[in-house]
Amino acid sequence: MCTFCKILNGELDGYFVYKDEHFAAFLDKYPVAPGHTLVVPKEHFENYLEAPEEVLSGLAKVVKLVSIAVKEAVKADGVRILTNVGESAGQVIFHLHVHIIPTWANGYPEVFKFFTPRREMTTQYYELLQKVINEAINKIKEK
Amino acid sequence: MCTFCKILNGELDGYFVYKDEHFAAFLDKYPVAPGHTLVVPKEHFENYLEAPEEVLSGLAKVVKLVSIAVKEAVKADGVRILTNVGESAGQVIFHLHVHIIPTWANGYPEVFKFFTPRREMTTQYYELLQKVINEAINKIKEK
Repeated sequence: MCTFCKILNGELDGYFVYKDEHFAAFLDKYPVAPGHTLVVPKEHFENYLEAPEEVLSGLAKVVKLVSIAVKEAVKADGVRILTNVGESAGQVIFHLHVHIIPTWANGYPEVFKFFTPRREMTTQYYELLQKVINEAINKIKEK
Repeated sequence: MCTFCKILNGELDGYFVYKDEHFAAFLDKYPVAPGHTLVVPKEHFENYLEAPEEVLSGLAKVVKLVSIAVKEAVKADGVRILTNVGESAGQVIFHLHVHIIPTWANGYPEVFKFFTPRREMTTQYYELLQKVINEAINKIKEK
């Protein structure tokens, strides 16, 4: 079973910020920027090109919701939304996932000055980011 | 009017590889890899977060189709699919567009040895890539 299927079924730890019947979002364990989040379908598809159209359509809506929430939660100026297909494209886990990576015009805000990209973070980081992104998602949904 | 709206209405040249009622795909003028293609909604939205869910759902299907076609047309090993939101994320044209960027495990194939990233290409390049991607799309649609 793949790493993301294991996170989805609880066999491995994951810091979830969103879950519905078909999709979930959790923090990237080795974030390239503070707040780096992954959105995945619960069903296993190797990559974007292997997933049926209806899955990609549903995924697109969740990606929008989570992207807005992440951007607001970490007070980012922008966000990069991307999915890699194949090892040559940088895909590491072969379960379709969309990266949401916040960006800032003038570097990380003061609260993230400790941040070093592509490293495993402290529990404190994961718990803080999970909390603020979760709150941002709930706020959007309440509207 | 934005650059992509001008390409869509014919005011500026574009090498289209796909068109339907709501979406279009054309070659990136300054490709980062051979075959680099953009998929856009015909309606103007500033970025991914500004577009309605139904537009993003439709866009996802076209992105899948065009990505498969581009990957096949240029015999790539993988493909990066991404959209940038905001200047800090690298967005240059403020009309929602998804980049499809082919990748190869061992560098460009022989036929693309001339390629230099992020430069305006020759007419020969645009016409060749338009032709092979178009053919790949038609092949997929015939299935």
